[in-house]
Amino acid sequence: MALCSISVVPVGTGSTSVSRYVARCHEVLARLEGIAFRLTPMSTIIEGDLDAIFDAAARLHRVPFEEGAERVLTTMIIDDRADKPVTMDGKIASVMEKLRRGGE
Amino acid sequence: MALCSISVVPVGTGSTSVSRYVARCHEVLARLEGIAFRLTPMSTIIEGDLDAIFDAAARLHRVPFEEGAERVLTTMIIDDRADKPVTMDGKIASVMEKLRRGGE
Amino acid sequence: MALCSISVVPVGTGSTSVSRYVARCHEVLARLEGIAFRLTPMSTIIEGDLDAIFDAAARLHRVPFEEGAERVLTTMIIDDRADKPVTMDGKIASVMEKLRRGGE
Amino acid sequence: MALCSISVVPVGTGSTSVSRYVARCHEVLARLEGIAFRLTPMSTIIEGDLDAIFDAAARLHRVPFEEGAERVLTTMIIDDRADKPVTMDGKIASVMEKLRRGGE
Repeated sequence: MALCSISVVPVGTGSTSVSRYVARCHEVLARLEGIAFRLTPMSTIIEGDLDAIFDAAARLHRVPFEEGAERVLTTMIIDDRADKPVTMDGKIASVMEKLRRGGE
Repeated sequence: MALCSISVVPVGTGSTSVSRYVARCHEVLARLEGIAFRLTPMSTIIEGDLDAIFDAAARLHRVPFEEGAERVLTTMIIDDRADKPVTMDGKIASVMEKLRRGGE
Repeated sequence: MALCSISVVPVGTGSTSVSRYVARCHEVLARLEGIAFRLTPMSTIIEGDLDAIFDAAARLHRVPFEEGAERVLTTMIIDDRADKPVTMDGKIASVMEKLRRGGE
Repeated sequence: MALCSISVVPVGTGSTSVSRYVARCHEVLARLEGIAFRLTPMSTIIEGDLDAIFDAAARLHRVPFEEGAERVLTTMIIDDRADKPVTMDGKIASVMEKLRRGGE
């Protein structure tokens, strides 16, 4: 279980708005098996095993092309651990616990 | 008003856990003026004007060094518009509206 | 033909040096078919079709784990165009031509 | 002495070409003091002390707006060490030495 932050941006579309592409990506993600995902203001975070993450990323990268874009920049950051599963809720809980204990 | 996704990671600390550094960064952010910020499972998102964002980023980059780290990787993605303010709630709302309308 | 900038960083190894892992990644890349790659001071750039890029990225992401790391952060940026192939030499040449013409 | 990989991309310009903006950024960098910089096919790498890097980044982020873009995505990765200076040539040399010694 790993996490991936992914942002898929069309370049040269003539519109500064990209929310249409993000919405389409979320519709695609909703149909994929074996992953959880969460929208943030700067990217979408995907949780799953590594193969599922790469499959989802490759799928999302194609979305703006399918919507007519001619150039796409996809930025991914993968966080993966061998010593324990990386989950969205687990990472947030870990920081929150440190904050409660005074940052120690 | 722009957004910045920032992740500050110590390298070579001997521990796979980084939540202590993230918690410390959030304590630093809580004392800064002129910005809003939100923790996500993969980064912290800062909302503010560009100068405030760069000041906050430079401040956060120093946190792991202050905690004893010898090497730090800081990853930032800034989203900035001249045609309207970029806000965390605004970006989420824009995607949600598109999803409600069937991705169109 | 697309480009991918990739950086694979072990977290928590106890050493600030990561060049050993980068060298190992380049040995892996040298054995892959259908891609070209180039080392830069901040990442490795892979040129190839999208499937080959994702295959290479998934392969590189595993390298630090194979070398004993317990946590890995992989950062990828993919630049892909439908209107023409994206190549390393082509992108550099395009900027150089603009610089020769005075930035216009 | 640290390194920063920076990519400044205009969104919504109506053209898939961004080399004009990259060339303009390099003209700006050439006039700044206290930094070295190098073009790669996926980003520009800036070498200098941290203040100079942040100043240069803030300056480059404004370039596409000055050229008429209405939205800009700037992606930065900073690599900084307390135990020794991080330089472009030093990082490449370190990987090359490992490759010569058989990846060990």
